[in-house]
Formats: sequence, C-alpha cells, structure tokens
Amino acid sequence: MEQENKVIKDRLSALRAVMAKEGIDYYMMPTSDFHNSEYSADFFKVREYFCGFDGSNGTLVVSQEEAGMWTDGRYFIQAENQMKGTGVKLYKMLEPGVPTISEYLKANMKEGQTLGFDGRVISTSIGEDLEKKLSAKKVSLKIDKDLAEEVWTDRPTLPCHDMYVLSDELCGKSFKEKLAVVREKMNEYGTTFHLLSKLDDIMWLTNLRGNDVECNPVALSYAVITADEFLLFAQPDEVTDEVKSYCDKVGITLKDYHELFSYIEGTSFTGDVLFDKRNTNFLTFKTLSKKTKEAAVSLKNEKDPTELLKACKNETELRNIREVYLRDSAKLTEFIYWVKNNVGKIPMTEYSAAMKLDSMRAALPGFIELSFPTISAYKANAAMAHYEATEDNCSEIKPEGMLLVDSGGTYLGGTTDVTRTIVVGHISDEIKRNYTATVMGMLRLAKANFLEGCTGKNVDILARQPLWDLGIDYQHGTGHGIGYVLNVHEGPQNIRWRFTPGQNEAPLMPGMIVSDEPGVYIQDEYGIRIENIVEVVKRGNGRYGQFLGFDHLTYVPIDLEAIDTSIMDSSDIKALNDYHAEVYRRISPLIQITYIREWLKEATRSI
Amino acid sequence: MEQENKVIKDRLSALRAVMAKEGIDYYMMPTSDFHNSEYSADFFKVREYFCGFDGSNGTLVVSQEEAGMWTDGRYFIQAENQMKGTGVKLYKMLEPGVPTISEYLKANMKEGQTLGFDGRVISTSIGEDLEKKLSAKKVSLKIDKDLAEEVWTDRPTLPCHDMYVLSDELCGKSFKEKLAVVREKMNEYGTTFHLLSKLDDIMWLTNLRGNDVECNPVALSYAVITADEFLLFAQPDEVTDEVKSYCDKVGITLKDYHELFSYIEGTSFTGDVLFDKRNTNFLTFKTLSKKTKEAAVSLKNEKDPTELLKACKNETELRNIREVYLRDSAKLTEFIYWVKNNVGKIPMTEYSAAMKLDSMRAALPGFIELSFPTISAYKANAAMAHYEATEDNCSEIKPEGMLLVDSGGTYLGGTTDVTRTIVVGHISDEIKRNYTATVMGMLRLAKANFLEGCTGKNVDILARQPLWDLGIDYQHGTGHGIGYVLNVHEGPQNIRWRFTPGQNEAPLMPGMIVSDEPGVYIQDEYGIRIENIVEVVKRGNGRYGQFLGFDHLTYVPIDLEAIDTSIMDSSDIKALNDYHAEVYRRISPLIQITYIREWLKEATRSI
Repeated sequence: MEQENKVIKDRLSALRAVMAKEGIDYYMMPTSDFHNSEYSADFFKVREYFCGFDGSNGTLVVSQEEAGMWTDGRYFIQAENQMKGTGVKLYKMLEPGVPTISEYLKANMKEGQTLGFDGRVISTSIGEDLEKKLSAKKVSLKIDKDLAEEVWTDRPTLPCHDMYVLSDELCGKSFKEKLAVVREKMNEYGTTFHLLSKLDDIMWLTNLRGNDVECNPVALSYAVITADEFLLFAQPDEVTDEVKSYCDKVGITLKDYHELFSYIEGTSFTGDVLFDKRNTNFLTFKTLSKKTKEAAVSLKNEKDPTELLKACKNETELRNIREVYLRDSAKLTEFIYWVKNNVGKIPMTEYSAAMKLDSMRAALPGFIELSFPTISAYKANAAMAHYEATEDNCSEIKPEGMLLVDSGGTYLGGTTDVTRTIVVGHISDEIKRNYTATVMGMLRLAKANFLEGCTGKNVDILARQPLWDLGIDYQHGTGHGIGYVLNVHEGPQNIRWRFTPGQNEAPLMPGMIVSDEPGVYIQDEYGIRIENIVEVVKRGNGRYGQFLGFDHLTYVPIDLEAIDTSIMDSSDIKALNDYHAEVYRRISPLIQITYIREWLKEATRSI
Repeated sequence: MEQENKVIKDRLSALRAVMAKEGIDYYMMPTSDFHNSEYSADFFKVREYFCGFDGSNGTLVVSQEEAGMWTDGRYFIQAENQMKGTGVKLYKMLEPGVPTISEYLKANMKEGQTLGFDGRVISTSIGEDLEKKLSAKKVSLKIDKDLAEEVWTDRPTLPCHDMYVLSDELCGKSFKEKLAVVREKMNEYGTTFHLLSKLDDIMWLTNLRGNDVECNPVALSYAVITADEFLLFAQPDEVTDEVKSYCDKVGITLKDYHELFSYIEGTSFTGDVLFDKRNTNFLTFKTLSKKTKEAAVSLKNEKDPTELLKACKNETELRNIREVYLRDSAKLTEFIYWVKNNVGKIPMTEYSAAMKLDSMRAALPGFIELSFPTISAYKANAAMAHYEATEDNCSEIKPEGMLLVDSGGTYLGGTTDVTRTIVVGHISDEIKRNYTATVMGMLRLAKANFLEGCTGKNVDILARQPLWDLGIDYQHGTGHGIGYVLNVHEGPQNIRWRFTPGQNEAPLMPGMIVSDEPGVYIQDEYGIRIENIVEVVKRGNGRYGQFLGFDHLTYVPIDLEAIDTSIMDSSDIKALNDYHAEVYRRISPLIQITYIREWLKEATRSI
C-alpha cells in the first residue's frame, strides 16, 4: 500500500480549516506571480507547498471533499511521483475525458457556493472565463484573500532586492522623453489615467531595473500615469538612496507596492482609464472595473503603448546591443573551442559545461546575470524541449554526437540569447542532413527582404521550408523579441506560422530585435537548434514602399563538421560563407589567444 | 465654355422628379447586380445611364441640389471626360480632403431626410455602415425602390438565358449528396432555414448552370434550404423542360426569381436562420432581420457551408480539371508558337491576337465560354492592371518586346486561367532579370511543402521573395481559387501577404485549386506576369502532421528567351527544367502538327 504523505495531508487540512472559516468551498492555486512573470519566486509556490508537485506548470484545486491538480503531458510522471500518498488526484490536461478546471468546477460546485483564489495570481482572461462559466450556477468568487498566508508559516518572503538606475546615456532616452510619448498615446485613446502592470514595461519606461524575478532584471512594481503624475508602486526596502534621489529628480512619485489596491479604491476617476487586459491580474481588473463603473468613465482595454516603444530599440540601445552581442559571441566561440578540444580528455558533463560557460560570461564587462538558465543538453536530452541538467542529474559528455547549448546573459548594454549545437564526435549522415537544413533555414530567414507591414507569419516559412522539404517540423515558434537589459522574451513581435487565439501578430518594424531559431528534435536520439538574434533594418526605399531586412547580431561559427553541402543551394552555401567571413572579421579581434583565433579561422573557412 | 450634356441632364431631371414624388432626398446608385457578381449586366448600369461614366467602379449620388460620382484613381481622367457638361461632380476616392460617400451624406443630409437606393444592389456591410453613420441624423432609408424603373424607358431587360443541367457523372456528386452535407452543416449551426444568395454556390450545389453573368456560367437565382425542402428561385423563362424535369426528379421546388421577398415575408420562422452576410444584399438582410425578429428566432451570420465544399474539388472534378487543363495548355502553347512565328510577318494587334486565341479555345471540345475577357497587352500596356484592348483601341504587335496574355475558358470539365508573357523581339537585360525572378517566384511557390493549417499568408512570400530581393513588388495578390465549370475567381482560399479587414484568410486544403501568379509592372515600359494554376495535394504523412504541396495543372512553356540563369539558384534551374520536361511529356501528344511539336521540344529544353 502507498505510504501516506502526512506533511502534505496536514497542510491540506489546515488549508481546509481556513477555507471553512472564510466561507470558501473551492480554493484554486495556479502557477504565477502578480505580474504573470516567466519565472515565479519561491514566495509564490503555494501549489507546490500544498501538493508537493514542483513542475513549472500546475494548478491545484481544493475542496473539503477532494484535491485535484492539473498539469500537462510534460509532467504526468513527475506529478504522480511527487504527489504519492497526498490524496491529491492528478488531472492530465488535454487527455481525452479529462475535464478542464472550469468544467470540473462547473460539474462539482453547488449552486450558491463560493470559489476562492488570490485574484492577483490569476490573469484577467482566466478570471473572466471562470466567472462566465460559473455564473449559471450562481457561484460567488472571493478573490481578495491569499489563504496560504495563514497556513504556510515558514513561507519565503516576497522577493525584495535593491533596485538600480540605468543612466540616460545607456538608455538613449530619458524617462521624461519616454513618458511624453506614452502620454501622447494616452491622449490618442482619449484617456487620462493609465495603469501599467507589466514589469519589463515599467522598468523600460523608468530606466530602472531590479532583481525580483529570476533572470529578469525587474522589480515587483506597478505604475500609474496621469496627465501630471507618475506613480511607481514598489517595495520601500528596494528603493535605495540612489533610486530615491533619481525618482525625486525625474518626477516619479514613490508609493508602497502593497498600496496599489487601496490607491485605486481611493481614486475618483474623472476621465477614461487605459489598461491592457493581457497584462493585468484579475483582482486589479475587478478593482478598476468597479471604480470606473462608479465614476461612469470607460475602462479601455488597449495594447499597452510602452510595449511597442520598448520593442523598437533606439539608436543608443542598438549601438550597445551590437557591441554586447559581439563580446557575447566571442565568449561563446571560446567556449565552443573549449568543448571541442577538451571533450574526452577532461571530465565533462552537461552541468559542468554549463557552469564553465556561465562563468566565462560572468567575467565579461557589465555582466548582470544570465538571461535564462543555460540549457546544456547532450545527445537525446537535446530532443526534450524543457530539459534542464542539474549537478545531480546530468549526462556525461563523451566524444560522440552533439551538445546543444542555448544560453545568454544580461549585461549593461543588452540581453543576449544564442543557441549552437556543437559536434563533439561522430555523427550520422542523417544528423548532418538535418543540421544542414536547420542552418539553411536560419540563414534564409536572416537574409529575407520583405515589405513593411509583414509580420512573423509572413516570413516564418523561410526558416521552416528546408526542414518541411524533408518532412520535418519543429513544434515551436521560430522567433521571439528580446529586451534591452531586460527579459529575454518580449513582444509584441514574434515569428510563427500559426497563431493561437489571443496571440499577437505584430508587424516587424525597424529597430526590433528577434530570434531566428529553427531546430530538429528526434525523440530519444538527438536535438538540433541554431539560434541567431537579428535586428530589423530598412533596406532601400523605392516605388513599392519600404523594404525591410535583418542584420545579424550574433556572430558565432556554425559547426562545419555537421554541414552536408549536397543538399544546399548555391545561395545557401554563399550565405554560410558570407556569414562565416563576418564572424571571423568581427570576432577574431576580440579573441586574445592565438591558437583559438587560428582555430576560428579554420572553423569559419569558406566551403 | 463647356458644352452642356442635355441627354444626361434630362435624365437627372426625370430622376429628381421621381425622387420628389417618392419622398427621397438623396438617391444612391452603385455598381453591382443583386448578387454582387464580378460582372454586371447592362440592366444594372443605372449609374452609367444617369451620369455617362461607364468605368467598372463608380457610385452616383443625386439630390435636388447636386449630383456627385465617386470613383477610384484608375478612372479619374475617363470620368472627367465622360461626365463633361453633365453637371455631375467627380469625387476622387482616397484623395486627400475628398469625403467618402457616407461622410458626404452625413455632412449634407438634413435631420429627418430620406436616403434611397435599391437595397438589392447594395451589400449588407455597406448598408449597415450607412445606417449606422446616418442614424445620429435621424435619416430614414428607403431601400425597396429601383427609381430607374420609371425613368429609364429603353432599359435593357434583366439577363434571362436558358439554364442547363450538368450530369452527376460530370459533377462527381449528385445534388442530393451535396445537399445532405449542407444540411448537416445547418444542423451543426443549430439552424433550420438557410438562404443562399451566391450564384456560384447555388449552381455548384444544384449541378445547374446558366448564362446570366458575363463569363460566369450562372443563372440569376436564390435558394432556400429547410429540413425537408429545397427552393430554387429562378426566372421562369430560364427553366427549360430539361431543367424542369431534373428539378422534379431531384426534389428542387422551383419558384419565381422575383418572389423571394414575398416568400420571406410570408414565412413564419420556427427555427434559427443561417445566412452569410458577405453574400447577402441589404434588402434581403433587412427582410430576414425583420422576419426573424418577429418570430423571435436567431439570424445567424456564418460562412456559407457550400463555399468550402465547392472549393475542395472532388475526385471526379479533379480528374476532369486535370484533363481540361492539359488541352487548354496545349492550345495556348500552339498560340504562343503562332505569335512568335508570325509577329512582324502578318498584321497582328493585341485585339487580333486575342481573337485568334479565343477562337482556338472555342474549337476545343466542351467549350462553353471564355472564363474572363482575354487580356492581350503589348509592351507598356501590360503594365496597366486593367488594360483591355478593343478592336478600335489596341496596339500593333511588332517584333520587339513582349506580349502579356492572360486568358482562360470554361469547358464541360473545368474552368481555366493562365498567363504567359511572350517574347516577340529584343528585350533588355533588366527585363530578362525581372522575368526570371517572376518565373523563380512562380516555381518556388509551386514546389512548397507546408503543414496542413497553413494559409495563403504563410506561403505568399515564396512567390514574392525573388522579386522582393530585387526591391520589386507586384501590388496584387499571388493567387485566387478557381471554380469547376464556374467562376474564374472563387474563395475561400487565396494567396496574399496581407489581408484587409473582411478578407478571409482560409487554410489551404487538399483538392483546392489556386492560381500562382507573380508579376512585374513597370509603368510606361512593360509588364510581366506568369500564372500557373496548381492543385493542393497531400505529401506524405509523418509524426509532424499532414504535409501538403502543390501539383501543377498548367503545362505551358515559359519563354526561355527571357531567362537569365545568372540570378537563379541551382534549385531554381532544376525546377524550371523539371517543369519543362513535364510540359513536353504531357503536352506534346496533344499537338498534332509536327513542326510545332519540334518547336515545343526546343522551347522546353533543359538549360
């Protein structure tokens, strides 16, 4: 018989007692912070605390009778193992016959019952969907209580790290200049009050940075813009003297992060309010809804104007980004040399290789942090989309097959992201063919010419076509935007061939930077991904409108040991040779060690 | 001083008298028939009658004080000339400061006035837009009167030509089989009454054809489908004995075309009603709206299910289409030979060349009519999108430059559409380069491999990229669907890189046929277009989903005199050679004359 997990059971009992006290019949715990950040800090791991499952996606629903946990196919086995003996039932998302959470609640909740959740960790779209689906059952929502507060006694504190100021020189535009443009947009929408919830938008706009989300240099915050005020809601302990005096100087009024809701409650709106539903949590939305309705003004859901301003990098940002990418590229090139020349000679694991690369990056000037946890995946591990090697659980790298390394850093001057798949020994002809097609796709997209107005949907096929010609697809997008000393994933632009409802299809615009990362993933065998970051640039201008193209930002050699020229067109070979010539021209001056420079010469030779 | 156009002025006076009698302050006359067909018969040329301007796009608005005519940039000069002395003011659409029709009406109409138009020649979207824009001014609409009836005494009659029946053998599926699928769709939408207004949908569904619209083998008609009835509203004089006995046999109840509105008025709806707003004229929509509201049932605007059924050709249709395209291709090939070998030797004009080709096509078995008026455009004329050579107004073809011929026929067995640009003498290197890039684009799109779910927006860039690489764009879509013994333009699929609001972005599906027609248009110099029709086919099926590709239907040589291999990739050259080998293999057996076969051998040689 399965052994009981008393720790979890006791926690659930305590939670149920609080639920009874609060009059909550069902309590839901998802995976998110208050800002729908890509990574959640330990403070937010409520679901993990109450069921034991710690995968990156899961929602726990608890009633007096039952506890159920929903996760996706990546985590079925892990969740079953981690929830053994807890009595929590696993609901396998998207499996036939398995209800969604809202279906489950609709089927199980009785008329007049109450569903509770912390409305700050639920997106507005999910909240509205639940509200709509459960309205027929006259279910009440109670969304202003985080029940974990009472039960989880040794809970980690909310992340709270010092904020810091980026100089106007580094940012290219001052806070005031940026704010003026956002206020113009507010006027265009006919609004006089604008709430910003998206952390990277707030950081970009204020030229501030923080350290509250793993790998994202952002501070937990909200911002409110009116015609004559700019309020920044941040944790007081994060506001250093430097930040305080900067805020005083530029006209940012500081408020306590926890006072947002009481601030909104206390506001009498005299004009329409601008917000972006995609980025606003459900409690904030409900609070704004109530207050604007009371004041008889409109609550306008529009794309946060900061997003596009942030996406189109200014000249200073671009100049710094280009430099940072060269240094980052040179460092990765040295790492590739190190891997290829040491594999089989010194002990090397996926984890130790990642540590090596991370420490090399950390030594670069202006290094702040990794832009995401380095993916170092050997052979078949590289076929898993969410593989993460740990010190205790990683493969040894032997002189055969390939190592896929996807990595990047955030520096004063830019945030990088790059993937190379490194040949460390014998590889099959099939691998060479697929590797070559991947490289062809990356380079073909990078040399595209397209008219202004094109979106990622128009150009995606250029990267996929060489693989689709072989009957192979990579089941992820081709590209995402990247922040400036900010998050490694940002919008609105992206490169995909299909868009799910709600996904934004935004035109590619000059100054945007975007990844170009086709791949091949053969389960249990190998994985290939080649990722360059490219910058959208203007190309000529004639009677047909403005043409755009891409310039490479990444200059790291592509492993010629895996290239099979027989499937390449003459223009593919030329593109690879041209790219490699540029890699050598730009990177070799940054490489101090002669024999690595010599190796690079050979690694970027014309074929 | 400008001479007065008394004829038009008298007509306008007569119209104004009727307007006064009917209590109509502004009367609007657009360019359309009752079904928004591509071509309008003379009966519908009301705007032409009242202002003299006979271009393909124009809307006339008349009040007691003023008459204004709106048209687009293609027609500014022609409209000015044709409307001289009529007192009708030209409104140049899209020019700065020029109001749209609804803006004009909003600015000029007085509160409580009445706007009139024939609600059968206005689309629902335009009607609703006017209604909305003018509602603030409390303007009434009077849409059930065609005022031209009283004034235009020598008006041509409504087109009325015999309908005919296509055999089930030719159609692959019987009317009953098709109807069963449409009824299933009606059920899916929860509807019990479905009005069809789109002529080609009605024709395809019933396996009937007509001859009421130029180049479209369709009869003026409406259809109503209920759970147990199929009503066809057609002009009694069109219903031959053959059609009547067919209708009796398959269960089609015939009604008079002009009784649709009284039929709807007399119907008591007991279930929800399905219609497609895109294809329904405003009077029909308003009548349906009123009646469904009265009956307290829903009027559901959904895509007409017949459209997609019609677009995905069945096996019989495809088999016939493939054959018809071969015969049509062989005929065009013989025409190309004739042009190239006779230019400079016999008198040849754009018009006489078109007549030659038309008569060659007419001699083919099963020929019904041209699928559109043949475009025969020499040199600079080919740069004009809407050029039409007439006997009195056409260029002589000399042995220099190129002749663009865009043409097709409707046969028992399929409808064709094909463009070739024929070298008839010296051409510049620039022309050769642009011609080659056009061919590369056509062939690259045709050999695309793509996953099911892709739309024309995903693949369009494959055709455009070789031209975009040269900084050139063609300012039209890359492809449109084509009917089966039906209209040369049909949806829902199309290949474009951008979509205007309301344009349908439909996935490409097996059995669809679509054109692939890139081009280059250099004003006052030359025009190039190469158009093949391709069929969407399945390609393999693996772990990544269903791949699709295209098979050529058109097999006509591409003029090697205009090919510059220096800009072609090795795969482009291979694609052209492979295509030409297939052209020779498939077409040469259909060409009886030895020296033309020998010429074809040379014209399709490997390069």
